[in-house]
Amino acid sequence: MRMLDLIAKKRDGGSLSAEEIHFLVKGYVDGTIPDYQMSAFLMAVYFQGMTEEETVAMTLETAHSGEMADLSAIEGIKVDKHSTGGVGDKTTMIVVPMAAACGVKVAKMSGRGLGHTGGTVDKLESIPGFRTTLDQKEFFDIVNRIGLSVIGQSGNLTPADKKMYALRDVTATVESIPLIAVSIMSKKLAAGSDCIVLDVKTGSGAFMKTVEDSIALAREMVSIGTNAGRKTVALITDMDIPLGFEIGNSLEVKEAIRVLKGEGPEDLTAVCVELAANMIHLAGKGGMESCREQVKQVIADGTALKRFRDMVEAQGGDPACIDDPERFPKAAFCYEVRAQHTGYITHMDTEACGIASCLLGAGRETKESSIDYAAGITLKKKTGDYVTKGEVVAEFHAEKEAFFKEAELRFQEALTIASNPPEKKPFIYARVTADGVEK
Amino acid sequence: MRMLDLIAKKRDGGSLSAEEIHFLVKGYVDGTIPDYQMSAFLMAVYFQGMTEEETVAMTLETAHSGEMADLSAIEGIKVDKHSTGGVGDKTTMIVVPMAAACGVKVAKMSGRGLGHTGGTVDKLESIPGFRTTLDQKEFFDIVNRIGLSVIGQSGNLTPADKKMYALRDVTATVESIPLIAVSIMSKKLAAGSDCIVLDVKTGSGAFMKTVEDSIALAREMVSIGTNAGRKTVALITDMDIPLGFEIGNSLEVKEAIRVLKGEGPEDLTAVCVELAANMIHLAGKGGMESCREQVKQVIADGTALKRFRDMVEAQGGDPACIDDPERFPKAAFCYEVRAQHTGYITHMDTEACGIASCLLGAGRETKESSIDYAAGITLKKKTGDYVTKGEVVAEFHAEKEAFFKEAELRFQEALTIASNPPEKKPFIYARVTADGVEK
Repeated sequence: MRMLDLIAKKRDGGSLSAEEIHFLVKGYVDGTIPDYQMSAFLMAVYFQGMTEEETVAMTLETAHSGEMADLSAIEGIKVDKHSTGGVGDKTTMIVVPMAAACGVKVAKMSGRGLGHTGGTVDKLESIPGFRTTLDQKEFFDIVNRIGLSVIGQSGNLTPADKKMYALRDVTATVESIPLIAVSIMSKKLAAGSDCIVLDVKTGSGAFMKTVEDSIALAREMVSIGTNAGRKTVALITDMDIPLGFEIGNSLEVKEAIRVLKGEGPEDLTAVCVELAANMIHLAGKGGMESCREQVKQVIADGTALKRFRDMVEAQGGDPACIDDPERFPKAAFCYEVRAQHTGYITHMDTEACGIASCLLGAGRETKESSIDYAAGITLKKKTGDYVTKGEVVAEFHAEKEAFFKEAELRFQEALTIASNPPEKKPFIYARVTADGVEK
Repeated sequence: MRMLDLIAKKRDGGSLSAEEIHFLVKGYVDGTIPDYQMSAFLMAVYFQGMTEEETVAMTLETAHSGEMADLSAIEGIKVDKHSTGGVGDKTTMIVVPMAAACGVKVAKMSGRGLGHTGGTVDKLESIPGFRTTLDQKEFFDIVNRIGLSVIGQSGNLTPADKKMYALRDVTATVESIPLIAVSIMSKKLAAGSDCIVLDVKTGSGAFMKTVEDSIALAREMVSIGTNAGRKTVALITDMDIPLGFEIGNSLEVKEAIRVLKGEGPEDLTAVCVELAANMIHLAGKGGMESCREQVKQVIADGTALKRFRDMVEAQGGDPACIDDPERFPKAAFCYEVRAQHTGYITHMDTEACGIASCLLGAGRETKESSIDYAAGITLKKKTGDYVTKGEVVAEFHAEKEAFFKEAELRFQEALTIASNPPEKKPFIYARVTADGVEK
C-alpha cells in the first residue's frame, strides 16, 4: 500500500477502506508517512469529504493511536459532555454537578482556553487551591465517592489527533466538517465514557457560523459515536450572543454558582438544563420530560450546588469561595463601557467580545501566556436589549487600566445598535440523535 | 505575509498576487516554507486552478529561482522545442537539424528518459562516442559554427521546479494543468531561446489523454510564453499510436535518419515537418506554407541530414554510423511477436507498448538504472492495419531471451483486434498560438 495512491484516490473522490485508513493513521503516527503527504491528503479531504464509513474508521484509528481510558473501575454509567467552544461558555461547571446530582457518573477531562474561547480547566483553576491534575486513582476515587470530577487532559490520549491537528492548523485544513468530527470524537472515545452529550455551538462566537453547518457536524459526530457503541446525542445551541452575562474565569465560576442556585440568567439556565437532562436521559434516567424535571429538582433542592462544592473540596479548592463568591479575588480596576448610540442592540460579534476579554487579560494568546483569573467582562446588556446613549452596557475588569482602551475599541465595534429590535433567536436550535434531527 | 493565509486563499478560490507568489516560491526554495505547507497549497491548486496572471507570475518566479541561460553569445534567432513526451517520440533528433538547415539556431537542452517514455539524451548517447555533456563555451561554439547542438540539462536551472516537482510526484499533485504548464515553461524560459515550439502529445501514450486537456495545457503554456516575451506556438499531436515504427534508443536514431533522408514513415514525417516549419516560422522565415516548403527542401537536398551528421561529429559521435546505420550495435536476440487473432488493430495502448520496450531493456525504471541502447521494439503493424492470426506484428530486440515473455504479455494486452477498422485519427489535432486555436 502506498500513501501516494491513497492521496490520489481521495483527490479523485474515492473512498478509503478501513485497512487503508489504518495504514494512513498508523503510518502518520510512526513517522513513515511524512507531513507533506498527510497535508496533501487532508486538503483533498477538505474538497472531497469522507463517507460515514471512512469517518468512523478514521475516528476509531485515531482513538486507538494512544491510550484508551478504562473507566471500568468507576461504578455505574459514565456520561461525558463536550462543547465545541464559545464565549462565556461555562456550561461544564454547571451540567456536570447537575448530572451527578441526578445519579450519573461524570469523569471528565477538559481543556484549557486558547484564543477567544475560554477553557474549563482555566475557569476551575480560578477557584483558589483547585487542582486539575490528579493521578488516575485519585480521579476515579473522587468520581466513585461524589459522582463527579473534572481534570485537565492527561496521559497519551490520541497522539494521532494531536499530530494531525497541529498539521491542519498550519495548512488551512482545520475547516473540514469530517476532520473536525474525527478530532472531537476520537478524544471522546478515548476518554472512555458510555454516553456522550455534544454541545455544538453556532453563530458569530462559534467555530461553526451557521445552523446548517452545525447540524452537519452534529450528525457526523452522533453517527461516529453511535457506530462506536456509545450513546450519543448533540444539541445545537446559540453562540451568536455570549452565553450568560459573564466572560472571564472567576466571573464565570460565580455565574455558574448562580445558575446552580436557580438564580442564573435565562439563556444559560435553559441550555444547562437541556444538556444535563440529555446526559441523564442517555444514562437511562427516564424520558426527556422527566429528566428535565429531575434536573430542575436538583437545582431547587440545592443538591446540584452541593455536588459542585463537594468537587471543589475534593480537588483542593476553597469551598468558602463557593459559599460566598465575594471571596474570589477581584481585579484592580473596573471600567464602565457606555452605549455610543440609542437603540436596540441588534447584533454582538461574539468572537470579538471574546477577544476583548482576552485583551483585558482573561485569555491566553499562546500556550505559554499566563491568565488573569479575575479579568473579564460583565455584560449589562445583550442582543435584543434597548439602550440609551451613555447607558452602561458592560463592565470591564482588569489588572491594568492601560488594557481598557484597546478592549473597548474592540467591544464597541462588536456592537450593532439600530432602531428596530432584532428577531429573537432560540437558545437551542435542534437536537440530533441517531434517529435524526429534531428542531 | 503568512503561507497559511495563502493556502486558505487558494483553497477558497482566491487569486494570489505577484508579490504573494514571489513570497511562496522564494520561501519554498530557501526552506522557510516547509514541504507540508507547499503540498497543501499544491492540492488546493489542483482543485481551484490558477488564473493566467498567477500562472505567468509563478512561471517567472520559478524560472528566476536559479540561473537564466544567456544565449546572447550565439548569433541569430534561437529557437527551442519541447515535447510533453511519448512513446517512439524521436522528433527532436529530426526537427533540430531541419530547423538548423533552414537557417535558425537551436541550442537545446534535453532530458533523459524515465518510465515508459524515452529521452533524447539517451537516444543520442546510443550513437557511439556521442557526448551530451559539454561546457558552455563548446556548446555555444558548436551552435555558432553549425547551427545546432543538443546536450543534457546542466547548471542550476529552475531549482524551484526541481524541488516542487519532486514534491508533486509524491503528493498526487502532478496532474494539474496550470502546475504542468508552470513546470515546463519555467524550464523553457530559463533555457533562454527567443522562440518556443511546444509539441503537446495526446492519447494513450501521453500524459494528457484527451485532446481537450491537451489544448487546455497548450493554451496555458502559449499564454505564459507570450506574456514572458517569447514567441510561442504549440501543436497538439497524436500519441494514441506510437510515433513511427521504432521504440528504443538506437532503433529510433536509425528511424530519425530515415526521416531526414525522406524515407521515414508518414506519421513521423508529417509531425516533424510541421514542428520544424513552426520553428522557422517563429524565427521569421516566412509564412507557414513557405516554411513547410523550406523544410521539405532541406530533406530533399540532404542538408537536414548533413546538419545531423555535423552535430554527431562535433559532439564526438561516430559519423560512420550516420552514413551506414547498419554499424549500430545490434541486440543479441530478436523475437517475432505474432497476432493472436485476425482482424483490424483498432487500438494500441501506447503507454503499455512503452512499458514493453522498457521490459526489453530500452528504458530505465529508476534514475540509477542502466539502458540497453540496442533493445526495443520494431512495429510491423499499427492501429488501423489488418492482420491475420500468426502474422508478425512486431520484432522485439533484447540482450536476454528471458526478457521476451513478460514483454510480449504486456504488448499483446496492449493490442485490440476487432472485425471493423477503426476511425482514422489525424497526426496533428490543433495548432495553438497567442491568437487562438486552429483545428
